[in-house]
Amino acid sequence: MAKNFEESKAMVMARYEETVNRKNRKSDFYNGIYDRYEYPVLTRDHIPPFWKYDMNPKTNPYFMERLGVNAVMNSGAIELDGKFYLVARVEGNDRKSFFAVAESDSGVDGFRFWDYPVLLDDVCPEETNVYDMRLTKHADGYIYGVFCSESKDAKVNDLSAAVAAAGIVRTKDLRTWERLDNLRTLRSPQQRNVVLHPEFVDGKYAFYTRPMDDFIDTGSGGGIGFGLCDDITHAVIDEERITSQRRYHTITEVKNGAGTVPIRTDKGWIHIAHGVRNTAAGLRYVVYAFATALDDPARVIAEPGGFLIAPLGSERVGDVSNVVFTNGAIARENGDVYIYYASSDTRLHVATTTIGQLVDYVFHTPEDALRSVKCVEQRCAFIRRNLEYLGK
Amino acid sequence: MAKNFEESKAMVMARYEETVNRKNRKSDFYNGIYDRYEYPVLTRDHIPPFWKYDMNPKTNPYFMERLGVNAVMNSGAIELDGKFYLVARVEGNDRKSFFAVAESDSGVDGFRFWDYPVLLDDVCPEETNVYDMRLTKHADGYIYGVFCSESKDAKVNDLSAAVAAAGIVRTKDLRTWERLDNLRTLRSPQQRNVVLHPEFVDGKYAFYTRPMDDFIDTGSGGGIGFGLCDDITHAVIDEERITSQRRYHTITEVKNGAGTVPIRTDKGWIHIAHGVRNTAAGLRYVVYAFATALDDPARVIAEPGGFLIAPLGSERVGDVSNVVFTNGAIARENGDVYIYYASSDTRLHVATTTIGQLVDYVFHTPEDALRSVKCVEQRCAFIRRNLEYLGK
Amino acid sequence: MAKNFEESKAMVMARYEETVNRKNRKSDFYNGIYDRYEYPVLTRDHIPPFWKYDMNPKTNPYFMERLGVNAVMNSGAIELDGKFYLVARVEGNDRKSFFAVAESDSGVDGFRFWDYPVLLDDVCPEETNVYDMRLTKHADGYIYGVFCSESKDAKVNDLSAAVAAAGIVRTKDLRTWERLDNLRTLRSPQQRNVVLHPEFVDGKYAFYTRPMDDFIDTGSGGGIGFGLCDDITHAVIDEERITSQRRYHTITEVKNGAGTVPIRTDKGWIHIAHGVRNTAAGLRYVVYAFATALDDPARVIAEPGGFLIAPLGSERVGDVSNVVFTNGAIARENGDVYIYYASSDTRLHVATTTIGQLVDYVFHTPEDALRSVKCVEQRCAFIRRNLEYLGK
Repeated sequence: MAKNFEESKAMVMARYEETVNRKNRKSDFYNGIYDRYEYPVLTRDHIPPFWKYDMNPKTNPYFMERLGVNAVMNSGAIELDGKFYLVARVEGNDRKSFFAVAESDSGVDGFRFWDYPVLLDDVCPEETNVYDMRLTKHADGYIYGVFCSESKDAKVNDLSAAVAAAGIVRTKDLRTWERLDNLRTLRSPQQRNVVLHPEFVDGKYAFYTRPMDDFIDTGSGGGIGFGLCDDITHAVIDEERITSQRRYHTITEVKNGAGTVPIRTDKGWIHIAHGVRNTAAGLRYVVYAFATALDDPARVIAEPGGFLIAPLGSERVGDVSNVVFTNGAIARENGDVYIYYASSDTRLHVATTTIGQLVDYVFHTPEDALRSVKCVEQRCAFIRRNLEYLGK
Repeated sequence: MAKNFEESKAMVMARYEETVNRKNRKSDFYNGIYDRYEYPVLTRDHIPPFWKYDMNPKTNPYFMERLGVNAVMNSGAIELDGKFYLVARVEGNDRKSFFAVAESDSGVDGFRFWDYPVLLDDVCPEETNVYDMRLTKHADGYIYGVFCSESKDAKVNDLSAAVAAAGIVRTKDLRTWERLDNLRTLRSPQQRNVVLHPEFVDGKYAFYTRPMDDFIDTGSGGGIGFGLCDDITHAVIDEERITSQRRYHTITEVKNGAGTVPIRTDKGWIHIAHGVRNTAAGLRYVVYAFATALDDPARVIAEPGGFLIAPLGSERVGDVSNVVFTNGAIARENGDVYIYYASSDTRLHVATTTIGQLVDYVFHTPEDALRSVKCVEQRCAFIRRNLEYLGK
Repeated sequence: MAKNFEESKAMVMARYEETVNRKNRKSDFYNGIYDRYEYPVLTRDHIPPFWKYDMNPKTNPYFMERLGVNAVMNSGAIELDGKFYLVARVEGNDRKSFFAVAESDSGVDGFRFWDYPVLLDDVCPEETNVYDMRLTKHADGYIYGVFCSESKDAKVNDLSAAVAAAGIVRTKDLRTWERLDNLRTLRSPQQRNVVLHPEFVDGKYAFYTRPMDDFIDTGSGGGIGFGLCDDITHAVIDEERITSQRRYHTITEVKNGAGTVPIRTDKGWIHIAHGVRNTAAGLRYVVYAFATALDDPARVIAEPGGFLIAPLGSERVGDVSNVVFTNGAIARENGDVYIYYASSDTRLHVATTTIGQLVDYVFHTPEDALRSVKCVEQRCAFIRRNLEYLGK
């Protein structure tokens, strides 16, 4: 280990530059649907040293971390003027999350954080934590950020209990952020994983929501909701319709939620969401996809069975193991798609694909047959067609 | 990554053949009781590509997975005509499990799935999932498969709640399967981890069971049960006796269950089962062994303290981390024993040993002394004998 | 694998000596606060083979483990006559823990267990398990060991329920241990993570405690307690004051507890403790630090935000994943400090630092700003000072 201030500082700076400048390559993972990459695109090692280390030897003689960063994960994503921007969830060693913009030319490597994280207006004195911003380039000309705003639940006598709402900000340049009222959903006291649809629907702003757990527990169904509101600056949603459902013994058994902003294609809106099931070792989060109708973005028109992305190899382990989660994707004009997904609440990865592949995947992957015996029938028919085609 | 259909297909096929043909070697793990191996014997990479990829470029232009397989794990095992057969639990990306036969000459590598998985008769419309088949070569001439048949619990208002029963099938060749009635245990509304004993007991069919959790929670003890039934085609068990007990602050504190079909030896029946304890990070499953009397296979005559197999190294992590589980072993005429155990609900391994070692282990390993101070006394006496023997 | 007794024994002995004699090196981890090391200092591979293997070929022909050891973890630590001693928590394959002394010249490698583990007096017939001893070199001339004494909870009808108390032993040489009465805390029926302060406070013995969970759940606060008692041989504490608090949305949200014996410095007592939060994959344990006043060791005078040590890399996974925990540190006359921390209830590591670094860390690291927006303000001000200093 380096023994003095200047030596340590030089080493820390060199490692940081090495991390940020590291070229990424496609890994040897193959499923024909998307490519994985060898390295994450954002980690805590991508945090600029001057966010963590006091650079003044007089006040920091040991060149010691003063404000550590624990993790970089769930990131909103947007393309502006041909550049890739992520609004990452950065988590300090103190567990509080905040947002920070990182920018890259390639979308798969070279992400570098801007000098300062995003300082939101302090409008909710009870707001303790913020995370998981979705970035929507809306038809009204603004870029909206919808995120989870979490506060201590003062109603129950449990120090760990929290209540969650959807916070809303807007910007034109990712630098100046105007905070609007939190979303109010009249029938769901809490909200997480809310996403703003990029177009007006029936002349209104449209949100994907998650109706309250109590609502789900009453057996009424549950799943990813959808609702409209007139005024984005004081957003209120009354009715929530269910889009993609939560279902027994599937990857969405315990819960599901919207992920990225839907991607418009000729065939429909493509949604990349997450589903959760329980295991003996805690919850397992995977990423799945479905499509909704162009003329009714709440109506599911195709939903492949199973997951699109599940934790793989080193992605399986982290601060919250057995999790992959996405809240940001970029679909470029040329058809290339970049899905930014975090693993185990610790680091951010990219999976690259194309609109063509995503459409083929969503519309031509068989649906979940829901029962083991039906799944075997489905697979045996599939095998039979293959063996006949192969002339066996 | 390969760029076109034929190139991708060739790569996928080559990787599959490489996986199936990979030679296995004993690892450098040592405990004198059994050997571990470098590679798992079955993984999702052992699934034939034509189970997952539509092989027709017209309908699958991107050579995309259409029916992914997520995991291969808990497998029944049997030797027939000198060959090793596993009836594996295969889990699709959609979470539904099913059974598939894989065959090998060596028992430690070269396992190759048959062309089609096992399609059971669809006799229970409410049955959602099936898993963990035990294969019993019974004295009546049939090979029985006893497995967990799981259905949604319609009685409680919880989307995730399931009820479990023991399904029963029989076959002579692993190809044609006759489904019999599910086992009914009159005093235990649910059953998991049921195993059919290979011999008649008092002229009846004998099952190892797991009496219901409620029964356990009333403090009556709990553990692995044992019961008899007259008619295997409509199996009903009334009384369940407890064999290996569930006990406080042992590896079976939370639950235990039968694993492999008992292995007959001169000294008694050897059982390889699993025990579960709770931790701050979820349940921990380990494999343990005990022996029952030849003249009363429900009566425990030897039970070593502690586990036989616990998760090690890369076995620790998977879809359900911190789990090893076995439901299949093969004991050959020559005394060689192959224990097939899955790790973390993700992949299947083999541990090899001999009847001689297993008998020595089960009958000469000290029992659990149950309290720390007694365990230290036990160990100090053990050390003292060693140091005296070593002349120190 | 070795095929016969002598060959196997020679291999096992050689591996053991290799493990114990392995030189340790600082890893390339850097934060300026402490150094990490490449290898753990104690693992189950450090257990002498004659604790596990019967060395007599007549009674152990297969050279088989007869009394396996599953893990070595949470260790009290003390320096005596210039040597480093750890009283480790050793866990048998049967889940029972016990204490064993390991000794080293360097403090970072070469730890070798004494021939026998510690056999405590069997004074509590209901005591099932003991663990996590803190070693206090007390002003009264004794070395005290305070540990968790756990018994089955006979009051509730749940086989897994346990009650915990603080056991107390004392010694002068780590060889002869006198067991005293368990600590009684009149207002907290249970105790874990109790630490004896090394000096008299108001002429009394002083303990750091953890007031009962029920007490916490009533919303009165909770955290690490502090209480005095007159007679160490029949220790009774009435009032418990709170020192470091448990707080919403911090690393101590679910619980916290004392770790090492406090280290006296010119500026105050330095405490190295643990904090716990909940995640979707179970509890996450991290290590944190704070300082209390020299004239009132219960009064917190500095508490850095966030954790000091969190699980890193291979530390993340083990029998109880996502845990680092410390109950022992050694501060030498020359200012060097050795913090012994276990990872995932599986192995023991060392982190080395100095009194100078620890004091700088505890007194100059910003406090937790408790709300995301305040944490961002804190970080932006920090960045601004850095960028100004760097002349940008």
